[in-house]
Amino acid sequence: VTRSERSPVARIAVDLLGGDAAPAVVVDGALRACEADPALVLILVGPRPVAEAVVSALPPGDRHRIVTRVVDQVVSMADAPSRGMRTDTTVRSAVAAVVEGTADGMVSAGASGAAVTAAVHGFGRLPKIRRPALAATLPAQSGPVVLLDLGANTEAHAGVLVQHSALGAAYAQIVHGIAEPRVALLSNGTEAGKGDRPRRSAAATLDARRVLPHGARFVGNVEGYDVPLGGRADVVVTDGFTGNVLLKGVEGAYALAAGRAAVAAPGVPRAAALLGVGGLVVICHGNADGTDLASGIGLAAHLHRIGAVSRLAAAAPDRIEVPG
Amino acid sequence: VTRSERSPVARIAVDLLGGDAAPAVVVDGALRACEADPALVLILVGPRPVAEAVVSALPPGDRHRIVTRVVDQVVSMADAPSRGMRTDTTVRSAVAAVVEGTADGMVSAGASGAAVTAAVHGFGRLPKIRRPALAATLPAQSGPVVLLDLGANTEAHAGVLVQHSALGAAYAQIVHGIAEPRVALLSNGTEAGKGDRPRRSAAATLDARRVLPHGARFVGNVEGYDVPLGGRADVVVTDGFTGNVLLKGVEGAYALAAGRAAVAAPGVPRAAALLGVGGLVVICHGNADGTDLASGIGLAAHLHRIGAVSRLAAAAPDRIEVPG
Repeated sequence: VTRSERSPVARIAVDLLGGDAAPAVVVDGALRACEADPALVLILVGPRPVAEAVVSALPPGDRHRIVTRVVDQVVSMADAPSRGMRTDTTVRSAVAAVVEGTADGMVSAGASGAAVTAAVHGFGRLPKIRRPALAATLPAQSGPVVLLDLGANTEAHAGVLVQHSALGAAYAQIVHGIAEPRVALLSNGTEAGKGDRPRRSAAATLDARRVLPHGARFVGNVEGYDVPLGGRADVVVTDGFTGNVLLKGVEGAYALAAGRAAVAAPGVPRAAALLGVGGLVVICHGNADGTDLASGIGLAAHLHRIGAVSRLAAAAPDRIEVPG
Repeated sequence: VTRSERSPVARIAVDLLGGDAAPAVVVDGALRACEADPALVLILVGPRPVAEAVVSALPPGDRHRIVTRVVDQVVSMADAPSRGMRTDTTVRSAVAAVVEGTADGMVSAGASGAAVTAAVHGFGRLPKIRRPALAATLPAQSGPVVLLDLGANTEAHAGVLVQHSALGAAYAQIVHGIAEPRVALLSNGTEAGKGDRPRRSAAATLDARRVLPHGARFVGNVEGYDVPLGGRADVVVTDGFTGNVLLKGVEGAYALAAGRAAVAAPGVPRAAALLGVGGLVVICHGNADGTDLASGIGLAAHLHRIGAVSRLAAAAPDRIEVPG
């Protein structure tokens, strides 16, 4: 919990070099975010000329809201995630800004693997949490649906699915105010016994043991259509490979239904919160545009203002046991 | 290759008791299929009164096109797939009708696990094929996209992904007339090295060895949105768990975009062909309606008329080696 947690000011570190169309889209996103939120302070992490482009585009009275943290190297999508551990990369420096207390949270549209690695090393994992999870919220007709993991881990593991069920339930309570979230596992059928081995094992644990935060309950399996349509679960848990494929498939379907060949589609979140680490991280889609970056920065500011990280740390881990 | 393969007549066995809303939707689907295709003969597999409902609803001049194969037991969604091996079930009897030569192919909207088990036992697998795959075709703007597996196997395995790549490529050539299909693995990013271990291993094999039918080529990874949007691959290969989740997610997104809470959506196929077994099997969605059943019967008739099963057997397996 930082000094400013109850303050309306939110100081968000932004990775200027993360994303397919960086730095242009990040500059655009930073400007949009500043315009939308007068209490926002941005720590721009990257090359000085890029940061100065943001400063010079702001009205003079707003320029004090920009802090520059000069870093010139980037982790590209083609690099191994371990490159995120290099202290000279923008994503690692953005994490360091939070660790040092000069930022309240960070946002990157760079390679998610590098961001996750940097976050785990910089912030550490929450107690008992084996792997962090990327969580996004889809606005279904019946209310928000929290979907996780979206790619922090690609291998399915029963114990991790159980932990992510608890983290997702706590996130739904804290961020969306759903007092009694219904938690489901994503599977290839709703009948008990559907799914591969990790899914069946996780379901058995969630059925048998109290591993979810108080108020949350496990409702069994849901299927792919329950994520966009909602109604059957408030939190849908899967491995990062399947979650990533599903979210992008839903996104493509919305785009096609709207008659566009572009992938950005209303109804699909373009920013995800990293749950299970001891700091505030929001990761945007690699092909994010300025609007997406601004919404990611806005999400980070909101999560900071409600104290999401410390409340998640307080709510979830005590109840999570690690099976398997 | 059956006697009638070059004939326009197609004799399709239909599981009267398969599907969430059976037998009513199957009766409806059978009637629609007969009306749409004058050269269709249906072998209705199930209780005699249900079959008689179809016969009595047909014009007298068409009633000779219905053959009844009386079976009174069903495999429910809640049963283990091995129940599909019981000779007294409708799905098993429908397979037997094809094995005996009284039908050219079969259609069921029952539990896919039971249908797959019955088909493997009744028809056998094609040479060198370890596991069959369920394949469906999505009508993307740029042309058809064949997606497999949709749930015949829920565990990802590199060798199976490679075999399914070859089967999917042959299916695109034979059924959709795509001479040089682009084959891709579904992953959580397009960069080389993305995906879990089975995906990375399968990509290495597809890159290094000639395992696809002549004309087909491996184009690397695609992401979730490439399935509904098309354009990057003609054949998209994944494990049955992920494929099932993705197809249903796309379906839900289309339904939501169309302002409906129903899951049936235009643009998403509701019938899939079982590839890799020595007989013709089409499996419809468990919540199929009469229109879906009719389209599944129509797909089976079409696959029979183009000799799909024998051509798949001739095209794919000779080139498939089994890594891992």
